[in-house]
Amino acid sequence: MGHGQFLRNLIIETPSKPGNLGKVTMAIGQLNGDIGDIQTIKVGTLSTIREIALQCNDKAHLEEIVEAIDNLKGGIKVHTVTDDVLQAHEGGKIHMKATHEIRSLADLRRVYTPGVANVCKTIQEDPEQANYFTGISNTVAIVTDGTAILGLGDIGPVAGMPVMEGKAVLFDQFVGISGVPILLDTSDPDQVVETVKHIHKGFGAILLEDIGSPHCFEIEERLKKELPIPVMHDDQHGTAVVALAAALTASQHVGVDLANASVGQIGLGAAGLAISRMFMAYGVKEMKGTDLNPKAKAMLAGFGGTVADSMEEIMETCDLVIATTGVANLIKPEMIRKGQIILALSNPNAEIAPDEALEAGAAYAADGRLVNNVLGFPGIFRGALNANAKAITYPMLIAAALAIVDSTKRDDLVPHPLDPNVHINVALAVERVVYEEQAK
Amino acid sequence: MGHGQFLRNLIIETPSKPGNLGKVTMAIGQLNGDIGDIQTIKVGTLSTIREIALQCNDKAHLEEIVEAIDNLKGGIKVHTVTDDVLQAHEGGKIHMKATHEIRSLADLRRVYTPGVANVCKTIQEDPEQANYFTGISNTVAIVTDGTAILGLGDIGPVAGMPVMEGKAVLFDQFVGISGVPILLDTSDPDQVVETVKHIHKGFGAILLEDIGSPHCFEIEERLKKELPIPVMHDDQHGTAVVALAAALTASQHVGVDLANASVGQIGLGAAGLAISRMFMAYGVKEMKGTDLNPKAKAMLAGFGGTVADSMEEIMETCDLVIATTGVANLIKPEMIRKGQIILALSNPNAEIAPDEALEAGAAYAADGRLVNNVLGFPGIFRGALNANAKAITYPMLIAAALAIVDSTKRDDLVPHPLDPNVHINVALAVERVVYEEQAK
Repeated sequence: MGHGQFLRNLIIETPSKPGNLGKVTMAIGQLNGDIGDIQTIKVGTLSTIREIALQCNDKAHLEEIVEAIDNLKGGIKVHTVTDDVLQAHEGGKIHMKATHEIRSLADLRRVYTPGVANVCKTIQEDPEQANYFTGISNTVAIVTDGTAILGLGDIGPVAGMPVMEGKAVLFDQFVGISGVPILLDTSDPDQVVETVKHIHKGFGAILLEDIGSPHCFEIEERLKKELPIPVMHDDQHGTAVVALAAALTASQHVGVDLANASVGQIGLGAAGLAISRMFMAYGVKEMKGTDLNPKAKAMLAGFGGTVADSMEEIMETCDLVIATTGVANLIKPEMIRKGQIILALSNPNAEIAPDEALEAGAAYAADGRLVNNVLGFPGIFRGALNANAKAITYPMLIAAALAIVDSTKRDDLVPHPLDPNVHINVALAVERVVYEEQAK
Repeated sequence: MGHGQFLRNLIIETPSKPGNLGKVTMAIGQLNGDIGDIQTIKVGTLSTIREIALQCNDKAHLEEIVEAIDNLKGGIKVHTVTDDVLQAHEGGKIHMKATHEIRSLADLRRVYTPGVANVCKTIQEDPEQANYFTGISNTVAIVTDGTAILGLGDIGPVAGMPVMEGKAVLFDQFVGISGVPILLDTSDPDQVVETVKHIHKGFGAILLEDIGSPHCFEIEERLKKELPIPVMHDDQHGTAVVALAAALTASQHVGVDLANASVGQIGLGAAGLAISRMFMAYGVKEMKGTDLNPKAKAMLAGFGGTVADSMEEIMETCDLVIATTGVANLIKPEMIRKGQIILALSNPNAEIAPDEALEAGAAYAADGRLVNNVLGFPGIFRGALNANAKAITYPMLIAAALAIVDSTKRDDLVPHPLDPNVHINVALAVERVVYEEQAK
């Protein structure tokens, strides 16, 4: 597990004298632990108890830190280590809730039998009415086969469920969409396509999530072709939208015109290929990409991109470089050219740390911690559902990226994900494109 | 649409003088309209405005009633007719809600990336942990193909969605289960079985709902065989549980020992066959059944029941008769034998009205308005999930029926569906059976 993915809370007692908290935080910092919120639990006459949120690399790193604190002596000690990440997941993070409470027999007769029969008949006579009298048009299936969960790989759909529930949480909170995880026990494209087709009528759109490469391409393409509702693989296009937004903002900071810049993509997995396609759709004229896998390079060529022989070629020739390889420290400082924009997006560990890249001469550098899908998919789906879109198109995605750029505060690379305006702006921008396309 | 299924609210203005409401309610009653709640909206110096909940047969019946009220003259008039059934369904009746609000970046990092990765790994290492750190074991798929929605028949899954959402509402409110409607666009048993198998990992149990006969039998049997989680077709076994409970209570009222009584089932559709099987599983020694369809009779024989040639034979020879034919007024008063127990369960119109049956000599009679599945399935699934049951068995279902009997107030046939004790008692009874079976 990489840097910062191991989150724990330390309950620490210190004598109630100034300077003790300083000793504790110093000890944590010296061992490269990241400190989050610090809460004072109890102030006693003799001692104070605090809860310190800690991000570290792994269990061994945690133990090292706890030992270092205990070794401070002088009455300082770690009482307990709690795992509030696991706690926050207890019982799952979502629940299908009734929007109307049944308080009386009259309520029951209204929302269930016999009243409901009339609503069914209304929809039978005019299927469009399902948009008004059911939640279908506000419900998105979050479909995974568990083959590419975060950076963890093929851990299976059940182990991936916490991520799917997380997506549903974000859908609910940011844009009021009802998100339903669907865990597939198959990765076979024929079976996946058949299964999703057979259940699609209950949903207003399909979000494909953490489905591995290369089967994700065939699955998405076929579902897009065969279903009358929007389908989007977030790891491809959601990521690409946020990457395009970040690249546009970074270019603005440096004074580069992205469309006329030379852009290089290192790593042509699902995300890298989608980023390349998105940039070309945006209007980038020179889009180069490379990968160790010749098939991935062939796919880029098929999409109209330029294949570079090596990452060195990209580093030498491109104004803006994006890396999505999953390989930490792949980009060495000596490869950086002066004035380059570097977006090293792999999580949890970037291909090069932003400070290293800047020191080596980059005009702008960022890693993937901020370039989070959460900025894209909620608003994209909200907009598509609002406008009753039949598909998610490049013009919609580019509008989403531009809305993210417009929602970004001066000096920031991307907006704060909890800024509700981002999601509203993205939704409105996407909606507008659909209405314009429908009006044609 | 039958009696009582057309629900509307009348906004009525009357001069503020005693006696006017009486005229209105009299006019409605004379036309056989059922009056529900009456709410006073506004009391003015000159006139009073009330909202009267009305159940009538259909639109024509409604118009007749409205005209009759307007014809009362003297300042009495119907202002508006509102449809609060449709209103209650606007936007759908369920929503996948986050159980944790994200208020800070720290929250986001806990419930989504990067924190969630550790939860995924925990489950990957020990799949049992999914019971604690996801909602899977508390989530039930409500699966329909829309071929037998209420008494409306094959209206398709989308038109049936209000019923599925209604089930999810009841799951949530009565027993805290997260119910997820799954609308299938196919009724082919192979495709249904394959589809449900491919998505089953996201659910703790499967509720099959409003799937037509005969394909419902094959689908349920195969899914029960192939899935490691509980599967139940509510229209069969949920109905049968409540019917058994009603029959047991009715028998108690009359002083009959059900196991040693002669029981007749008129109508061997999905519900009728399931009721027959449930009664035999309970211990009824003489279980007769009949249907117009020879195949249905052959199925009954296959399950060990006795085939009767006609409903007349059943009416002549049985102590307790259950009818689930969907045919209103099928049982004529002259068919009733003195002392018989008659449960004419078809909705919305019974095979014989209870008062007619009693007048004709029945010792006990009831129709299907109270014998509602809502008394069974929530507690059955709650109990099965609580006990981590792998299947739903007859002992569990019989325990559920007995718990419903025990929860029934003196003189009632079944409990009030909003009495929370019923669902708790059913859940506990089902859970106990599972634990006993597991302990063997």
